[in-house]
Amino acid sequence: MVLVDKQKINSILDSYGEKFSIATICSHSSLQLFKAAREEGVKSIGIVQRDKKSLYESFPLAKPDEFIVVDNYADFNPSDLVSNNAIVIPHGSFVEYVGEKVDSLEVPLYGNRASLVWERSRDKMFEWMHKAKVRTPKILKPEEISGPALVKFPGAKGGRGYVIVNSQNEFRLRVGDKKCMIQEFIIGVRAYPHYFFSPFNNFGYKTSHGALELLGVDKRVESSADEIARAVSAGMHPKMAFTVIGNEPMVLRESLLQEYMEIGKRISDVSFDLFGGMFGPFCIETIISEDLEIYAFEISARIVAGTNVYVNGSPYSGFYYNEPMSTGKRIIRELKSAAKNRKLKDIIY
Amino acid sequence: MVLVDKQKINSILDSYGEKFSIATICSHSSLQLFKAAREEGVKSIGIVQRDKKSLYESFPLAKPDEFIVVDNYADFNPSDLVSNNAIVIPHGSFVEYVGEKVDSLEVPLYGNRASLVWERSRDKMFEWMHKAKVRTPKILKPEEISGPALVKFPGAKGGRGYVIVNSQNEFRLRVGDKKCMIQEFIIGVRAYPHYFFSPFNNFGYKTSHGALELLGVDKRVESSADEIARAVSAGMHPKMAFTVIGNEPMVLRESLLQEYMEIGKRISDVSFDLFGGMFGPFCIETIISEDLEIYAFEISARIVAGTNVYVNGSPYSGFYYNEPMSTGKRIIRELKSAAKNRKLKDIIY
Amino acid sequence: MVLVDKQKINSILDSYGEKFSIATICSHSSLQLFKAAREEGVKSIGIVQRDKKSLYESFPLAKPDEFIVVDNYADFNPSDLVSNNAIVIPHGSFVEYVGEKVDSLEVPLYGNRASLVWERSRDKMFEWMHKAKVRTPKILKPEEISGPALVKFPGAKGGRGYVIVNSQNEFRLRVGDKKCMIQEFIIGVRAYPHYFFSPFNNFGYKTSHGALELLGVDKRVESSADEIARAVSAGMHPKMAFTVIGNEPMVLRESLLQEYMEIGKRISDVSFDLFGGMFGPFCIETIISEDLEIYAFEISARIVAGTNVYVNGSPYSGFYYNEPMSTGKRIIRELKSAAKNRKLKDIIY
Repeated sequence: MVLVDKQKINSILDSYGEKFSIATICSHSSLQLFKAAREEGVKSIGIVQRDKKSLYESFPLAKPDEFIVVDNYADFNPSDLVSNNAIVIPHGSFVEYVGEKVDSLEVPLYGNRASLVWERSRDKMFEWMHKAKVRTPKILKPEEISGPALVKFPGAKGGRGYVIVNSQNEFRLRVGDKKCMIQEFIIGVRAYPHYFFSPFNNFGYKTSHGALELLGVDKRVESSADEIARAVSAGMHPKMAFTVIGNEPMVLRESLLQEYMEIGKRISDVSFDLFGGMFGPFCIETIISEDLEIYAFEISARIVAGTNVYVNGSPYSGFYYNEPMSTGKRIIRELKSAAKNRKLKDIIY
Repeated sequence: MVLVDKQKINSILDSYGEKFSIATICSHSSLQLFKAAREEGVKSIGIVQRDKKSLYESFPLAKPDEFIVVDNYADFNPSDLVSNNAIVIPHGSFVEYVGEKVDSLEVPLYGNRASLVWERSRDKMFEWMHKAKVRTPKILKPEEISGPALVKFPGAKGGRGYVIVNSQNEFRLRVGDKKCMIQEFIIGVRAYPHYFFSPFNNFGYKTSHGALELLGVDKRVESSADEIARAVSAGMHPKMAFTVIGNEPMVLRESLLQEYMEIGKRISDVSFDLFGGMFGPFCIETIISEDLEIYAFEISARIVAGTNVYVNGSPYSGFYYNEPMSTGKRIIRELKSAAKNRKLKDIIY
Repeated sequence: MVLVDKQKINSILDSYGEKFSIATICSHSSLQLFKAAREEGVKSIGIVQRDKKSLYESFPLAKPDEFIVVDNYADFNPSDLVSNNAIVIPHGSFVEYVGEKVDSLEVPLYGNRASLVWERSRDKMFEWMHKAKVRTPKILKPEEISGPALVKFPGAKGGRGYVIVNSQNEFRLRVGDKKCMIQEFIIGVRAYPHYFFSPFNNFGYKTSHGALELLGVDKRVESSADEIARAVSAGMHPKMAFTVIGNEPMVLRESLLQEYMEIGKRISDVSFDLFGGMFGPFCIETIISEDLEIYAFEISARIVAGTNVYVNGSPYSGFYYNEPMSTGKRIIRELKSAAKNRKLKDIIY
């Protein structure tokens, strides 16, 4: 869909002045965001499905200040947000539930909404990664399948529906003509770095347009893949699935950090060439092989749920901040500082 | 065994007045409890085996104020505890070492000791879960085995001794007439939520008799199951074992929290119908399938060792408390507050 | 190589007086060390390869106060360190990059550099473990191979290059006459306890020459071993590899702590018999079997990278300290206290 006019968003921001609230859908990483807003004295609005309101009311330090109750997550009214001076923080569930309607949504979104368009398409995402000269799994045509390959369908949510095929024949039988991307199966261990890009920073890892922080690293927990060995050892032969059910903390070998920051820098730099830049939190989903080669297979152009592991800060965030710094709190701080310096328009679209 | 008369425990509590100490066996989650008691100004007593005393003396901030040294963990004298105004915090090792003697033990126990009776019997536990309409693995009769099934024996401690059989024949050979429960083998990933129920709370997830907090989530680390893939990949075919050797932190996908809190609520509500309620910390052992279906396979009606991961608080505890809140500290706080309000009898039996 | 004369190091320390800085190579666990030094008011020096300087400059709270830029990590000049009153903290990458040159390096090293000689040789290490009566995997001769065995080569870095063979024949084909150690393949789960030995402590687990603290436990994340089940389940038969790519937190079953502290104590005590003692942080790499038997397969006689998980303290460190205590901070504290009491020579060689 056509993106809402940036001037439209700017004029909404003008109407806000310095005073803003934050809003998001009650899911994904919203508790972390509401908690941070509360701590930073910023009003928060939770868009919540009727049957989940009691859950979000149950956290005294992480409930939103105000609820917008909807029957369906996509059914909120942008003008209710604008009238509350709200800046929307898009997270994974927001992007999923709102879908392409986000493009035309007449409410300010933290970050560059063009980045969500690039995140949405696996083809565009690989174009982005390749322009950034980041190593990725090979993309295969059906006739190039010669061993295990991972088949991913458009908009697969939280890893659901990925399929592994072992041959062209199995591909024909299980996938057929469905639109999909076929990726080389990489053997290694996954790691999900949580980057934060700010155009205002005078510290962090310098990029062409600002600087990067590394606020944490997690590993997604996927069902059934993460305990598939139990089933195999029990004598079963189940098809492996990759549904994300949670996240766990990890730290990277320190000698890998330089390459991770370089990868982050190049992805950030290329985002400016392709669509005017990506602002705030992002994640590059990676696999590290036994030869310490890093393969990227996805970009999340917004806060990822893995940051929920570090609501109280991470081993990395302490290298930048003297206090527990979650990605949620980092976002609120960025917005407060931009509002104070009248630079919200630089990081919001 | 017959439970000690509640009036007897009440009269002991009357003799305590407002002043109490806490006591438990030096094992399981005791360091966390002693540390919390120390921080909260509550005297702690450690029942310790002679050869483990030096270990427990070695932690300046987590050693108990006083030791009761025994040759065997079950051999302490309840009157030594009562004369110290002690409330016992039963944990997994306490329950295991003391066994059914706990029923008649003439000393106040935090929580409802009837819940330990229900926890002790796998049949009762499944009755409880089914009454609460919680999804569980199917319970099989030997003649219903038609693929991998998990065979659990009475009182298996920390997962030791569980057996996987693949056929009725293997069941006959390896298990025979032994008393056991046969469970359908569920493929998925395990998650262990740490609930805390308080009848006094004016916050948290409302239940019919109070409210629930979620203080953390962990994953048990089981030997050899958690690294069985290495052995298989090395060409071995070992029988998988499930001995718990530790715990690691994880967070759940935020969209799963609603169902987890509902499961906790129903288990809590039904505990009142069945035996007068379960008070304080409990855990519902679960597996999450690739379709995001949650299966419960066990209830721990007291503090679980997975809370040791969060001695300094968890990503969830910060949604309720402005300070690092372990389950141990939450217990001590509950006791202090009940003592102050002369409500100890409501949460102690 | 011949160890530098201890008197030489002592006279350098005499020239320092009470004032010292710390130095190490920018890798492994250096960020944690620089951060701790900064917090403790101790000057830090980072020996850094030219292309990694920008990374280490990017952490405002964890960058060293001063850089020594080199083209190659082994190419620093010890006199540049001595002129800065530097005490070197040797970590895993330091040991690897500097190699045997460390023996004769004319600069004070925290700890006993003789321990690095014992760590370097797998034969010496197993002699040490056996003298300490610690259970280890069996060491096999080629003709004793009768099933999966782990073949380790001298100086394998971060687990790279380990090989599993299943038969004498496979050993001949894949290893041949190469110098190696063949270890029985133990089925279980790995755990890496972070010990800290101080000869000055009046708390902690008593040893013959001081006392031990347990500052944390981690699990190494190895590629491809930790996700090998995915490849196997996908229908591949890759050779498993053990390259360490990071670390994740875990806690041990509390009832295992006594044996872990005893193992630490015996390794520490025997280090005094063999080479005058090991000071400060060390790690004993272990596997825990389903029968809760602990096997040790390696000793790291210095800070391990797994401590990076606990830059903000661990569940265990809180049992000793009222503040977040990383191993890095514990080291700096030990040095400050020794400097103040004019005892640096007791813990530095």
